[in-house]
Amino acid sequence: MPHSRDEGPDALFALAAGSTRTAAIDGISAAGADPVLMAHTPSADAELLAYGRTARAPVVPVSPTGCPTPAVVTRAVRERLGFETVVLDAGLAEPTGAPTVDLGAAQGGDVRDPEPVPDAGDVFETARALGGDLPADRLVVAETVPGGTTTAMGVLAALGERRAVSSSLPENPLGLKREVVDEGLAASDLDAGDLADRPAEAVRRMGDPVLAAVAGLATGALNAGATVTLAGGTQLATAGALVRHAGVGDALELATTSFVAGDDSARIQDLAADQGLDLTVTDPGFEARRNHPAMAAYLAGEAKEGVGMGGALALADEADLAMDAVRDAIETVYDRVTDPVEEPA
Amino acid sequence: MPHSRDEGPDALFALAAGSTRTAAIDGISAAGADPVLMAHTPSADAELLAYGRTARAPVVPVSPTGCPTPAVVTRAVRERLGFETVVLDAGLAEPTGAPTVDLGAAQGGDVRDPEPVPDAGDVFETARALGGDLPADRLVVAETVPGGTTTAMGVLAALGERRAVSSSLPENPLGLKREVVDEGLAASDLDAGDLADRPAEAVRRMGDPVLAAVAGLATGALNAGATVTLAGGTQLATAGALVRHAGVGDALELATTSFVAGDDSARIQDLAADQGLDLTVTDPGFEARRNHPAMAAYLAGEAKEGVGMGGALALADEADLAMDAVRDAIETVYDRVTDPVEEPA
Repeated sequence: MPHSRDEGPDALFALAAGSTRTAAIDGISAAGADPVLMAHTPSADAELLAYGRTARAPVVPVSPTGCPTPAVVTRAVRERLGFETVVLDAGLAEPTGAPTVDLGAAQGGDVRDPEPVPDAGDVFETARALGGDLPADRLVVAETVPGGTTTAMGVLAALGERRAVSSSLPENPLGLKREVVDEGLAASDLDAGDLADRPAEAVRRMGDPVLAAVAGLATGALNAGATVTLAGGTQLATAGALVRHAGVGDALELATTSFVAGDDSARIQDLAADQGLDLTVTDPGFEARRNHPAMAAYLAGEAKEGVGMGGALALADEADLAMDAVRDAIETVYDRVTDPVEEPA
Repeated sequence: MPHSRDEGPDALFALAAGSTRTAAIDGISAAGADPVLMAHTPSADAELLAYGRTARAPVVPVSPTGCPTPAVVTRAVRERLGFETVVLDAGLAEPTGAPTVDLGAAQGGDVRDPEPVPDAGDVFETARALGGDLPADRLVVAETVPGGTTTAMGVLAALGERRAVSSSLPENPLGLKREVVDEGLAASDLDAGDLADRPAEAVRRMGDPVLAAVAGLATGALNAGATVTLAGGTQLATAGALVRHAGVGDALELATTSFVAGDDSARIQDLAADQGLDLTVTDPGFEARRNHPAMAAYLAGEAKEGVGMGGALALADEADLAMDAVRDAIETVYDRVTDPVEEPA
């Protein structure tokens, strides 16, 4: 039930949080300091978005080299703009203290399995219904799922689309991802393109539950007349491909960061063009703070995107919030979440 | 894990939302236009708090005479102050589109049953653990559960405390509530005071799951060193009694509305004094807008409190937000949620 913009808060920011065992493949993802902590990353990202601090998660997610999760950036923008958020449990592997809408999704399996997401159809339908129910005239949809670019590549292959994807690592392990995806196609007895126009089936056999949730939510919101922004990089472009393969042709924005746009291996411009997505690229201007550990890591090519960072930056830009103010807010949130907490006397 | 005030957002507002079949007793509650819609009230209140509009709930809750839910007031204050919220599913009877932390609570039974809340102990413990995990230096705890003042009276009786409670009706049906509670005590084979110092057991045999959630959350947060405000009327005073009967003696604020404080049948001042609760009463000054349908209904004695209205007003007062600005915000939210929604062309 969409409402006219002046009836209330503008954008509703939805974060689909889940898991895929694909992330456990050595060298695939940098969305955690180690494989054990990586399983907590989506739960921690949800808490950072909801509270500006972790709750039940053991640590604030960082890459093996210490780059903090992009949730810090998204939260920083939120603290300035005050948009509402909703987290969808799309197969979380670890408990979160953040409030969630449960999509009934199981954890995602390894893309090299024949059927990594057995409940993809149900997750897509549940998310689609929710997308039609959420009171948003403008829905911004984001993801947090370590290993998600590899499952995105798997879905692009199953759909017969361009297989370009980005990486949370400075050096995109594209060779490894292609091997894993080819192994997944073989295990699923698929050739590239076999599942064109069958989005839920493509996710069921080659994806992760978060892709089903994002695509379903976007489809439901578009059908209800809302404006939808896919907030992220190549995983969100893949969700856009799923929406198109579901037969939805409405205008759809893809809002990502300059770090993804500058990653030649990601081909985000081509992916967006392939699916008729209106690409918005926002540069947070981290060069101005290259001595800050968080911003320096992004300049070095780490993380690049995630937890809707590109969409949050686009919202800041739309609201005429200066990027210098965004950078100040990032430092505030970074200091809050990285400082050791004093226990009360 | 409490954090120092200057590390981030001040107060975290937690709403425990649930049900008790006690609400179905004719004449007990006005928290819904009719018994069928009343079952949706907590789910709708959660959506109004989270989004400023309903999502999956069929209607915005109103009393049989049309008084809108106090969630409108709490949301209005939130839209000015921007505090974070978290909704706890403490036994919702109907689905909500709001994100929640699931306490694993079943719907509450009729207080006239021997054991209306079989899982009271588990709900209390789950909420207590969450209360220690939530990253709040200041936790404000609220409730939405139709029929809750009657179960509160039942718990007060089981604990051996003063049996005064307020009502969402202009004329408090105290006689009916006392009959229902006496019936419940008999069904539970209890005399007044039999369950002193046994809070979970008092809820299990005479309460509702929301009381277990609120008392558990407050206990966990106090044990973690947070400042806790019980936001509401006699139900929250009863939660305070449960905290005291759990052996927790920390300072504890009870923040309610002038409508509850002005209800002689509620005896809120005595209830607070009995439990050593620091009572804060806030008057939203609705006399200044006595022609507004929502505010007029409160002046006529309807609703009085709920969804943390008194706590939200106290936060506004602390933040030096003028009540005239609060009243403006109430009109804005009221107009938004009561206007018919246009479907897209």
